[in-house]
Amino acid sequence: MAIILGDNQYGKAESRVVRIVRDTARHEIHDLNVTTALRGPFAEAYLSGDQSNVLPTDTQKNTAYAFAKTKGVEAIEQYGLELARHFVNETDPVEGARIEIEEFAWERALVDGTEHDHTWLRKGQEVRTAAITVDATGEYVIGGLKDLVLLKSTGSEFAGFLSDEFTTLPETHDRVMATALDAKWRFTSVDVEWNAVYPEIKALMVKEFATLQSLALQQTLWHMGTAVMEAFPFIAEVRLKAPNKHHFDYDLGRFGIENRGEVFFASDRAYGLIEATLLRDDAPPANDAWRASAGLA
Amino acid sequence: MAIILGDNQYGKAESRVVRIVRDTARHEIHDLNVTTALRGPFAEAYLSGDQSNVLPTDTQKNTAYAFAKTKGVEAIEQYGLELARHFVNETDPVEGARIEIEEFAWERALVDGTEHDHTWLRKGQEVRTAAITVDATGEYVIGGLKDLVLLKSTGSEFAGFLSDEFTTLPETHDRVMATALDAKWRFTSVDVEWNAVYPEIKALMVKEFATLQSLALQQTLWHMGTAVMEAFPFIAEVRLKAPNKHHFDYDLGRFGIENRGEVFFASDRAYGLIEATLLRDDAPPANDAWRASAGLA
Amino acid sequence: MAIILGDNQYGKAESRVVRIVRDTARHEIHDLNVTTALRGPFAEAYLSGDQSNVLPTDTQKNTAYAFAKTKGVEAIEQYGLELARHFVNETDPVEGARIEIEEFAWERALVDGTEHDHTWLRKGQEVRTAAITVDATGEYVIGGLKDLVLLKSTGSEFAGFLSDEFTTLPETHDRVMATALDAKWRFTSVDVEWNAVYPEIKALMVKEFATLQSLALQQTLWHMGTAVMEAFPFIAEVRLKAPNKHHFDYDLGRFGIENRGEVFFASDRAYGLIEATLLRDDAPPANDAWRASAGLA
Amino acid sequence: MAIILGDNQYGKAESRVVRIVRDTARHEIHDLNVTTALRGPFAEAYLSGDQSNVLPTDTQKNTAYAFAKTKGVEAIEQYGLELARHFVNETDPVEGARIEIEEFAWERALVDGTEHDHTWLRKGQEVRTAAITVDATGEYVIGGLKDLVLLKSTGSEFAGFLSDEFTTLPETHDRVMATALDAKWRFTSVDVEWNAVYPEIKALMVKEFATLQSLALQQTLWHMGTAVMEAFPFIAEVRLKAPNKHHFDYDLGRFGIENRGEVFFASDRAYGLIEATLLRDDAPPANDAWRASAGLA
Repeated sequence: MAIILGDNQYGKAESRVVRIVRDTARHEIHDLNVTTALRGPFAEAYLSGDQSNVLPTDTQKNTAYAFAKTKGVEAIEQYGLELARHFVNETDPVEGARIEIEEFAWERALVDGTEHDHTWLRKGQEVRTAAITVDATGEYVIGGLKDLVLLKSTGSEFAGFLSDEFTTLPETHDRVMATALDAKWRFTSVDVEWNAVYPEIKALMVKEFATLQSLALQQTLWHMGTAVMEAFPFIAEVRLKAPNKHHFDYDLGRFGIENRGEVFFASDRAYGLIEATLLRDDAPPANDAWRASAGLA
Repeated sequence: MAIILGDNQYGKAESRVVRIVRDTARHEIHDLNVTTALRGPFAEAYLSGDQSNVLPTDTQKNTAYAFAKTKGVEAIEQYGLELARHFVNETDPVEGARIEIEEFAWERALVDGTEHDHTWLRKGQEVRTAAITVDATGEYVIGGLKDLVLLKSTGSEFAGFLSDEFTTLPETHDRVMATALDAKWRFTSVDVEWNAVYPEIKALMVKEFATLQSLALQQTLWHMGTAVMEAFPFIAEVRLKAPNKHHFDYDLGRFGIENRGEVFFASDRAYGLIEATLLRDDAPPANDAWRASAGLA
Repeated sequence: MAIILGDNQYGKAESRVVRIVRDTARHEIHDLNVTTALRGPFAEAYLSGDQSNVLPTDTQKNTAYAFAKTKGVEAIEQYGLELARHFVNETDPVEGARIEIEEFAWERALVDGTEHDHTWLRKGQEVRTAAITVDATGEYVIGGLKDLVLLKSTGSEFAGFLSDEFTTLPETHDRVMATALDAKWRFTSVDVEWNAVYPEIKALMVKEFATLQSLALQQTLWHMGTAVMEAFPFIAEVRLKAPNKHHFDYDLGRFGIENRGEVFFASDRAYGLIEATLLRDDAPPANDAWRASAGLA
Repeated sequence: MAIILGDNQYGKAESRVVRIVRDTARHEIHDLNVTTALRGPFAEAYLSGDQSNVLPTDTQKNTAYAFAKTKGVEAIEQYGLELARHFVNETDPVEGARIEIEEFAWERALVDGTEHDHTWLRKGQEVRTAAITVDATGEYVIGGLKDLVLLKSTGSEFAGFLSDEFTTLPETHDRVMATALDAKWRFTSVDVEWNAVYPEIKALMVKEFATLQSLALQQTLWHMGTAVMEAFPFIAEVRLKAPNKHHFDYDLGRFGIENRGEVFFASDRAYGLIEATLLRDDAPPANDAWRASAGLA
């Protein structure tokens, strides 16, 4: 019986890379949080402290900043591929690279109704994400978003559920449904119009959330995922994680005031948590595509 | 020499009140975080534990929810005034009330390009705030916003500053300037079109931030504040607090790569912090208008 | 009618200064979050962008780090005084300085029951604070702590309170009382054994919280504050802010299970918020002692 | 080609359960954050919205609170096993249950040097965790901790590493090493003295962190993990995740001040992130033991 080193990886998490494109007076901004992780024959770093195969995490960070200039960051999926390929191809002992990226959205400031050239406001809550893995088995790109906060004030039911001795929840046919969606989708190609696809995926999911008469958050997630997969044949898998952010009717009847779904207490905790994976029955193997590093993206 | 009880107040902080208006198929949503605090002859609660003058904080919370239905929350300033007046006028021992409100913005989901009737996405980062005080000296309304995250990628300088033996900062005539603005403005009237004024104030501040060639964040704040006060004679005072969220040029020259204001490290801490109060020379007294409770709004 | 610049200040917030004392093999650690702010004739920085009186916030940060070495940080109150005096006395235009410090506590790692020389674990939740103001009127030191999380599982009542049409809270003579205390105390001297006094103040407040049969959080705060002021004649004022972190009995009776104050739901929001100021009737004027900058300390 | 439903689960996340044991005057406190998730034939909830197999998350929450009374929470591993077994054995369609628990530590208040019977202070930063899985393949318990913040001010080196064109990091033989450890350990038995083992595991890891002359954080993690596994034969696997919380020497030489590892800037981001799995070569299969729900524990 011996102790062995199993899965391991190391890298630099959360490098805050801001890239301004200023070739013309109308600037562009890309605001990223970049995590890199390397996989390979690093056992001696653990077992004996020998660092000769270890490219410092500081170097990984420098590379992320340098590539923001030399390769650009127009699409985070492409930028992540460039970084991952570099580490695998250019750094001899590295066998696999994992890049996780969060992108924070900005919108142009409006000045007298006109978009400003070089001033922005942070936009929305949602964060676009990408997770890229490159190793001997291939290249894997997972797109995604998180913290997309959605709420519908009707069109949501919950009834006909299983009941036991601890069940006190009443059935409802009209409730508020709110979530902070975490969605990830696996591409089967790296030849994708990344920036064109992203807003379409988001719009499809928002549309399903809005228009489906929801019988459960599970059903809503299924429809959101299938809408995306039916529209984009190069997406083989969608993973969804959705907290059910409860909005409880506030009991105003105690004060002789009628509350017909108008006044709610928005609860912090506990919350429901619904998770689902949708995949094509002919999806190619994911291998390490879903193996996270920091887990931020 | 004796120990005496000085300023005191008590209340319920951060009641999360969500109000849906559903009189027609096109719903409206108001998403609030409400803090109430009462002032008055509560010394015995402290000195002897006698609660006979103390309206429970639970009751204050119930009132906030009840008023969301009976009075509505169309403008948080007005809703706050209703709450404050209620506590001062209807609850015998209460002499002063302080209401602090945060409002979280939502925008309608777009479905096939059309605004949806009952589905929303959380919008932006900024939070609209109001702080209302009612006491024997009168009624005071402070409007505001916080976490309005702004960035300009040029049009900002910092030079000609004082220098001592610990000064190493180089002068610059082109830098990124970014902040998360906290702005508060004191009204001299309670007869204001609250919801019309708010976006205009925000737009004026964004415009000044965008268009002024900034010599310092101090100067930018001054211009943002004066623009608001010149436009609205019923605003007597503006208080601004702005972190200077540093974006440092990443040194790519070490790798033979030119970085002309294109790649930045966005630093978390430390940050500059610039504060200013602007007021009219004939501003009426603020009395307790700025005395906070939870300090959230 | 003109717009004038009122109160203003500027500085560097949240410099994370870690000081290791390593003169012997048994190291010491001081882990600080330092905010500095300067007050004086800085109007032109706002009005015209002229920075000639403005010592950069970067320089203030450098000074905080330099003084951590040259002056030491054995007591944050003393270190803050050194910094404040330096800015007021050594930097010509500066008229007032405000230093706010948070100190994070560490405890020595135990190795086989023995304290280790150079390894520590972060200790507790509570943060020791200091806020120092030096200006033409004198020197002011406010000590404090925040996020001291306390809970008692009995010995707390709440009854006999005022009731109105929105009051539904039942009276109780045995409840959980929990808070995250924010306490500040104003010294009337700068010749204090800072590090000896701090743990005694904390112990006194914890003792009162524990041993007093509480009739209300207000009464508990009063006893905590008076205990401190009676013990230390050089403390002229104590300010306390205490959220009432509600622990609600979970209704197990619905399942035929008796719950006699044994199982609670710990609620996040809303929470009660009780505030009090205690001061000596002969307290010297506070002047700007309580005027915050970042408000962290 | 069809879209199919893959892995899925649903449950109630972050129920804040506080359990007071008050059978004698000397109370005990257990402060938990409990997540439950169920696995089984729930496809129809997704595909058609049919909830007939779905035990509401509200019921799961009720069960967590009820069991806190009827089963007790003396050891979170045991309490989690009770909950998981209940759902799998008592709720007909449920095939697998996942329970994730965080426990927040409290220490008794000291009053005049004596431990108080019913008053506590929140203790430390670290959170004890447990993740229990029960399904047709067996019962799995993973213990753990997170946010154990450790720092050593010497005894840490980093040198001899790989270098490329983006490498600028200097070698060092004396640096600060700090982390916020996330450690998980998989038991091969459910017949364990849970509460006796936990502090021993923690002490072993702290000892290795403190006493090993570190050549890299990787090596430190390896030694921490092997120390645990050598001491406890019923632990088959240890997973470690450790941010390298950088403390950078502040450059005081610019001011003519020597800084020999005494004054540091504690950086927020980016940070190194080192991960490792250690396992016995004869470890039984983990099956779904590591499949997370909320991922909090």
